[in-house]
Amino acid sequence: MRHTYHDIECCAAKVALDQISGKWKPIIIFHLSAGPRRFSELWREIPRVSKKVMLEQLRQLEAATLVERTVHNGFPPEVTYHLSGKGQQLAPILQQLEQWALTHIEGVVQIS
Amino acid sequence: MRHTYHDIECCAAKVALDQISGKWKPIIIFHLSAGPRRFSELWREIPRVSKKVMLEQLRQLEAATLVERTVHNGFPPEVTYHLSGKGQQLAPILQQLEQWALTHIEGVVQIS
Repeated sequence: MRHTYHDIECCAAKVALDQISGKWKPIIIFHLSAGPRRFSELWREIPRVSKKVMLEQLRQLEAATLVERTVHNGFPPEVTYHLSGKGQQLAPILQQLEQWALTHIEGVVQIS
Repeated sequence: MRHTYHDIECCAAKVALDQISGKWKPIIIFHLSAGPRRFSELWREIPRVSKKVMLEQLRQLEAATLVERTVHNGFPPEVTYHLSGKGQQLAPILQQLEQWALTHIEGVVQIS
């Protein structure tokens, strides 16, 4: 009955949770699930986060290959962020988690 | 376009993630989703966790009302743990997260 875990510390869901457990990561993923955003657009949509912290969270999401960054040629060059395929497939699961929290955890409010 | 958040720091999904982001919490929820377990059964099913740590994680899951504890009369009295209704509704979302991780994150393995 004892299960075997191979090259990871715990189960796959734990690994997934680690990739999205940053204070602003779920909300960044929600906003990007509506389409690509420039940094300044995203920052205006998300209240109370500093630019420094949001940039850190975006870099961690990029490192986890959930978010991709595109530099568009032009003057000045424009940078946009969008969800990778992996990120796009995560978004509806996070939405279910959001709905679950709204149903079951007192005092939480919807983000939109 | 700026959203308003009321009495919480961030979005509902973040609050949900906080309740399940313990090293052994997702795996405890997975095992309890198969039915009630005595502490010793659960401990045997989950490798490499100490009894002390597993008890702490169970207490936090109880505090978050995801897990309930029943004391059965008898000698010696038997204690079992089971998912609350809230926990039962979370389990399939965690399973989707597990599946997503197995598809998209290299090096993760299935728990069963």
